[in-house]
Amino acid sequence: MDAKRFIKMWFQKTITLSPRSRGFHIITPDVINQISEIEKIKTGILHLFIKHTSASLTINEDADPTVRTDFESHFNMLAPENQSYYQHTFEGPDDMPAHLKASLLGSSLSIPISDGKLNLGTWQGIYLCEHRDRSSARKVVATIQGE
Amino acid sequence: MDAKRFIKMWFQKTITLSPRSRGFHIITPDVINQISEIEKIKTGILHLFIKHTSASLTINEDADPTVRTDFESHFNMLAPENQSYYQHTFEGPDDMPAHLKASLLGSSLSIPISDGKLNLGTWQGIYLCEHRDRSSARKVVATIQGE
Amino acid sequence: MDAKRFIKMWFQKTITLSPRSRGFHIITPDVINQISEIEKIKTGILHLFIKHTSASLTINEDADPTVRTDFESHFNMLAPENQSYYQHTFEGPDDMPAHLKASLLGSSLSIPISDGKLNLGTWQGIYLCEHRDRSSARKVVATIQGE
Repeated sequence: MDAKRFIKMWFQKTITLSPRSRGFHIITPDVINQISEIEKIKTGILHLFIKHTSASLTINEDADPTVRTDFESHFNMLAPENQSYYQHTFEGPDDMPAHLKASLLGSSLSIPISDGKLNLGTWQGIYLCEHRDRSSARKVVATIQGE
Repeated sequence: MDAKRFIKMWFQKTITLSPRSRGFHIITPDVINQISEIEKIKTGILHLFIKHTSASLTINEDADPTVRTDFESHFNMLAPENQSYYQHTFEGPDDMPAHLKASLLGSSLSIPISDGKLNLGTWQGIYLCEHRDRSSARKVVATIQGE
Repeated sequence: MDAKRFIKMWFQKTITLSPRSRGFHIITPDVINQISEIEKIKTGILHLFIKHTSASLTINEDADPTVRTDFESHFNMLAPENQSYYQHTFEGPDDMPAHLKASLLGSSLSIPISDGKLNLGTWQGIYLCEHRDRSSARKVVATIQGE
């Protein structure tokens, strides 16, 4: 492994995702279109960090929309509304489940960049997981490190 | 994206978190106080890695303590003690659930640094998730990359 | 924190993990053997990204094999087959649970490198989580950044 003769660089910006309905949504095109700097990186990592506690990011199957429908159904089972032991209820029945789902799925993603493209598998897409009934625009900090 | 004229740097150290009771605990001040190097980074990433398999790290709501209480209640439902199919039982009833919770929540976090500060959302805090009844000090490797 | 006089470097390659049976498997030796470049890094991060939506990566206890058996049992409870609300069923009963498990556990890991070694805790190992009945070889993009 020789230290390559490429220029090391950092890039960071905050992108805004328009409001989505409660559920799981493919945002790969939003990410690629809003972060054109990916094209300039030969080898690197894209880090995405969502600045919210009731929405999350994950990577999963991007071809069949029923996968996302099943995600919504199943995560509603894993973190149901109105559990008798919930104490944090004053923001509505969808709020505490939203926090739980956010930690089960995670607030950040790191994706390799290779030759100017996200090095995702054939079937992989980036999901925005919107856990609130009343969705709002979501802010994501994108940080690229690479060369 | 020009390669900026900043100095690229790496920094790494292991911090120790004092023992917490079983449950979910805000450690954002511990992290910021013990890793003063964050202030010196204009653009970068803080990576935190917990060197244990029965405690974990996540990011969630840091204002209302009942959220953390509900996390403890709900994760005790998702990974209950004394399931009939558990084979790994010799370290006590809280041990196998602790391992499961650790993988559901994750052993590492990556948080963007912007202008010398962790670029967290308004309501986001860093949680130490302590899954054992008898807690001990927890070691976390902090790695900063940035410029 | 002075900028160290070490050479910053990036390294990236795709490794292939041979097919494993459905369940949780220690792959720490595979990772270390296939990514010998770890030895050349004083301070850095190894990022592993699995290019599949029905297998995942996590870090957990590597000493007692019954932990991995219990993981398989318990994740089969958290994401059971044949739920009545599943719509994505045409790839077999293990397919939708595989997608759910992949997002619960995650598709990537970031592990600190210190003095040429992965800085894992005493009991930590890297798991390949194979969620399909008919397993195939799995591709993992390994990216090292460090100096």
